[in-house]
Amino acid sequence: MSGPKKEAGREGRFAYEGLDRVIHERARLSVLTSLIAHPKGLRFNDLKQLCALSDGNLSRHLQVLQEAQMVQIAKGFDHNRPQTMCRITVLGRRRYLEYVEVLEQVVRDAAAADEREQGRSLTRRLAPV
Amino acid sequence: MSGPKKEAGREGRFAYEGLDRVIHERARLSVLTSLIAHPKGLRFNDLKQLCALSDGNLSRHLQVLQEAQMVQIAKGFDHNRPQTMCRITVLGRRRYLEYVEVLEQVVRDAAAADEREQGRSLTRRLAPV
Repeated sequence: MSGPKKEAGREGRFAYEGLDRVIHERARLSVLTSLIAHPKGLRFNDLKQLCALSDGNLSRHLQVLQEAQMVQIAKGFDHNRPQTMCRITVLGRRRYLEYVEVLEQVVRDAAAADEREQGRSLTRRLAPV
Repeated sequence: MSGPKKEAGREGRFAYEGLDRVIHERARLSVLTSLIAHPKGLRFNDLKQLCALSDGNLSRHLQVLQEAQMVQIAKGFDHNRPQTMCRITVLGRRRYLEYVEVLEQVVRDAAAADEREQGRSLTRRLAPV
């Protein structure tokens, strides 16, 4: 069905270049989705639990996100105990939402392919023996 | 809004553990989506174009996918010229579709968070001055 000529004009059709490496890494995707769901910010320990990450891993990924200016970290005190608050920035939110648009395209491409394949196997099952 | 007690019961809520590392890497996600959209298989060169990958990169990622038994590689001839055909396996298809279900969850979580935030900013705009 898919000859070389047909494919030649579709260079990079499935390249998904918008899958930004800073965001695509699983732990960081997890951190950013937690933070976008909590726009007022999350305490380090709550974020750690939501993402099921160790202290060290979460710190490392937060640093990458902070360097990319996607996350803000604020150290403060709660009842005299030190605490770290993490928030997504305006830039982080925008880049994350652009990234998710590309994820949606992957899901649509997969769903379209799966439906065609289901359709084909249904046709095979319904074919007279 | 999100106190520690509320979050405590949601350990790993945003961990997305189903984001299989073999599939999640961007180039491999690109290869697998191309192959699921072409269940009869693709020639190496067509796959390379669809994914916008170099020969070396495509070979390397195909090897990882072949070792994971998610992709089959067959060397053959077309008009006496050697060619390599790549296909997704039944296992590859199953694992890929499971992975895409998790991606869909990420997209749903992001969309829900974005709608809440849009709703809030709308409320702010509509508030009497």
